[in-house]
Amino acid sequence: MSKILGIIGGMGPLATVNLFNKIVINTDAQNDQEHIHMLVDNNINIPDRTAFLLGTGEDPTEELIKSAVRLEKAGADFLIMPCNTAHHFYEVIKEKINIDFLNMIEETVKFIQTNHPNDKKIGLLSTDGTLKAKIYDLYFNKRDIRVMSPKKETQESIMDIIYGIKAGEKEVKIDAIYDAIKEFGARGIRVIVLGCTELSVVNEMFKLEKSLADTENTVHIVDAVDVIVRRAIEFAGKKVL
Amino acid sequence: MSKILGIIGGMGPLATVNLFNKIVINTDAQNDQEHIHMLVDNNINIPDRTAFLLGTGEDPTEELIKSAVRLEKAGADFLIMPCNTAHHFYEVIKEKINIDFLNMIEETVKFIQTNHPNDKKIGLLSTDGTLKAKIYDLYFNKRDIRVMSPKKETQESIMDIIYGIKAGEKEVKIDAIYDAIKEFGARGIRVIVLGCTELSVVNEMFKLEKSLADTENTVHIVDAVDVIVRRAIEFAGKKVL
Repeated sequence: MSKILGIIGGMGPLATVNLFNKIVINTDAQNDQEHIHMLVDNNINIPDRTAFLLGTGEDPTEELIKSAVRLEKAGADFLIMPCNTAHHFYEVIKEKINIDFLNMIEETVKFIQTNHPNDKKIGLLSTDGTLKAKIYDLYFNKRDIRVMSPKKETQESIMDIIYGIKAGEKEVKIDAIYDAIKEFGARGIRVIVLGCTELSVVNEMFKLEKSLADTENTVHIVDAVDVIVRRAIEFAGKKVL
Repeated sequence: MSKILGIIGGMGPLATVNLFNKIVINTDAQNDQEHIHMLVDNNINIPDRTAFLLGTGEDPTEELIKSAVRLEKAGADFLIMPCNTAHHFYEVIKEKINIDFLNMIEETVKFIQTNHPNDKKIGLLSTDGTLKAKIYDLYFNKRDIRVMSPKKETQESIMDIIYGIKAGEKEVKIDAIYDAIKEFGARGIRVIVLGCTELSVVNEMFKLEKSLADTENTVHIVDAVDVIVRRAIEFAGKKVL
């Protein structure tokens, strides 16, 4: 018997599918009944987080809280939220619920501190919203780790990739991700965070780390979704495969 | 704004992921907000349906009803259930809820009648539970269509495939599916139903219809999950891609 995991989803839907799938395939289970009981709210009414943080869209707070409360009422024992940018609203959501709520940003930062203790500069691939609101900086800076972002034009192309995934584009061109990895490498950065759940979808499609050229293979890509997936499986009381 | 779709899931979890993914990738949407609001209950407490129908396991009715009621209470406007065998309990579940509940078996049978009106014998690939309880026969026989099943040994191997997917096996050997297709072909059957949601997972992995040899390419494979996915997207008020 596992704890019931609630997933505040829909940001975007394909990223929610990706997380859900990763939990299922990484849980040590021999039959349906040995898996994790999950409740997923694929809530498409949550306004775009980046648009709000850039001052061009509606406030997503109310809908985020609605999802969290809906999942708690439906029986969830703890929550996760597969959207990095939405973590800007983490504390406000947490106040409205009485169950545990794992923080994907904090877990990712802790994972990096444990596994790459000597890296004091990390590269961040994320939305403009996550960069502007300094969502990762908050947790990294406490640990004396600096967060670096891609060049302006590269970042613009990364936003195109993220919103291409959201739009269901079948042929996503991901050159900008490799450009960003090269830029980071030239600045001596060895650890790069995929800090957007759509980029985790891209990672599943293209297996980014494996596809890096030999000259780039000292780079470590940390997918925030992978971190929270492992943490959620363990928190639910199951073993990670 | 779409109707809210509730999914009685967990039978098995990977089959639920497969259905969820198919709904997302087949919905005509340009951004997160244009998708379908879905609530998924990946309820792993539902006992094995086939085991019960063969007299060797617990009754899944109570947990199936719990999921349906939980989803209705959480706000679902209509339900679907990605497990063919669980449709043996469809009427009992329906009685306990006040929202629409699309029937995957009935929709699949209607689809075949519309698209293959001259085929009066269809081949069924499903669990022993679905065969024993004659879940498809109920709907096909009303339309004077006969349901044929694979030979005993072939059926045993198909059960191994289904429970291999449930156990998360990475290397699934699917020869038995091709054997069954050949057996059906030799009996003049042109339409074959994938009447188990784990076999839909196999279909996604191996693209069964495309992989058939030329001599077998007059065979039409109808995946019950694809049928209910299209129907659910339309019922939610969205366009199928």
